[in-house]
Amino acid sequence: MIYKLQPLTTLFSNILEQRWPKNFNTKDEKSSSIEGMAADGGQDLITLTTDKLSADRVSESVTCPSCGAVSLFIGTTRDNFEGKKVIRLEYEAYSPMAESELRKICREIRTKWPSVRHINIQHRLGVVPITEASVIIGISSPHRRDSLEAVKYCIDTLKATVPIWKKVSKSLRWDRLKKMCHQKKNSLHFVCVI
Amino acid sequence: MIYKLQPLTTLFSNILEQRWPKNFNTKDEKSSSIEGMAADGGQDLITLTTDKLSADRVSESVTCPSCGAVSLFIGTTRDNFEGKKVIRLEYEAYSPMAESELRKICREIRTKWPSVRHINIQHRLGVVPITEASVIIGISSPHRRDSLEAVKYCIDTLKATVPIWKKVSKSLRWDRLKKMCHQKKNSLHFVCVI
Repeated sequence: MIYKLQPLTTLFSNILEQRWPKNFNTKDEKSSSIEGMAADGGQDLITLTTDKLSADRVSESVTCPSCGAVSLFIGTTRDNFEGKKVIRLEYEAYSPMAESELRKICREIRTKWPSVRHINIQHRLGVVPITEASVIIGISSPHRRDSLEAVKYCIDTLKATVPIWKKVSKSLRWDRLKKMCHQKKNSLHFVCVI
Repeated sequence: MIYKLQPLTTLFSNILEQRWPKNFNTKDEKSSSIEGMAADGGQDLITLTTDKLSADRVSESVTCPSCGAVSLFIGTTRDNFEGKKVIRLEYEAYSPMAESELRKICREIRTKWPSVRHINIQHRLGVVPITEASVIIGISSPHRRDSLEAVKYCIDTLKATVPIWKKVSKSLRWDRLKKMCHQKKNSLHFVCVI
């Protein structure tokens, strides 16, 4: 679906063409999930999906008998952005790279907080109506401090590094894209905003 | 239900008698809820209940169109405590004081993070089986940092100050009670552990 980015090619066509293969987004896929297993048996669950997300499902997937803490972060569509009314948001991703970056975040979390047991990162793609969740991160650990800190690290790093982009309606412009492009024009992450 | 504490009266009977009125716990009540309204229209929801808690219900109750972030903390029953196998946990509270302390925490959160919109604190009482939630805190804010920090503050303060106690089965001893009593014997919160 490269045609969606054509208006922006004057800004960064060379980088796009050199670094990103076909199947630029996952709009035609309903869902893609990957599952990893940490050395201690903890699971890393990563899902990109056009389905509605559920806090209960994420919470249940990371809950386990040895853990007393589950921390969740839920990013929802706001009705405003930089003083403008938002009608809707639409998310697109280059799934292979997004999943790769999310797996990397999981590995980093397990290095920084070894007691973390399960990690579930779900990101919705396509249109996400106002008040619905675009991202839910759930992390469990025996004690609360690790899961609380790990969730904060996870969402901060996701927003900084993972190629999932949001498009603000009704202008259909790619949000903050130009700004990020100028800020990080030599980085692969120059469009890595959600 | 004062009889439950009789074995401990040698430790702190004078404090109990002086400071705590009748209706010591809420075991005979199914649920008690209070709702407050902040100056900006944000809601403080506080519930003590014997019902099963739900992350989705808490999340939905604090979600609003102007907020892009909902942070949740879920405390669950672990199968172990200080190296011992836990069969089940049971929570009891002196509800009027617990609700008063929880309202105070809400006020403190609104002072420290004025952008926080809605706060929902739910604590389960009675038996909470392993892996089920004993406490769920949900806080919404326009941007993620405030809700993440506020949730951490909320659970840390709840555990330090709110008179909700856990009883570890199968020994039926009041967990950490002696230790806390020695640590904070002049404080009203000497048994405020969960």
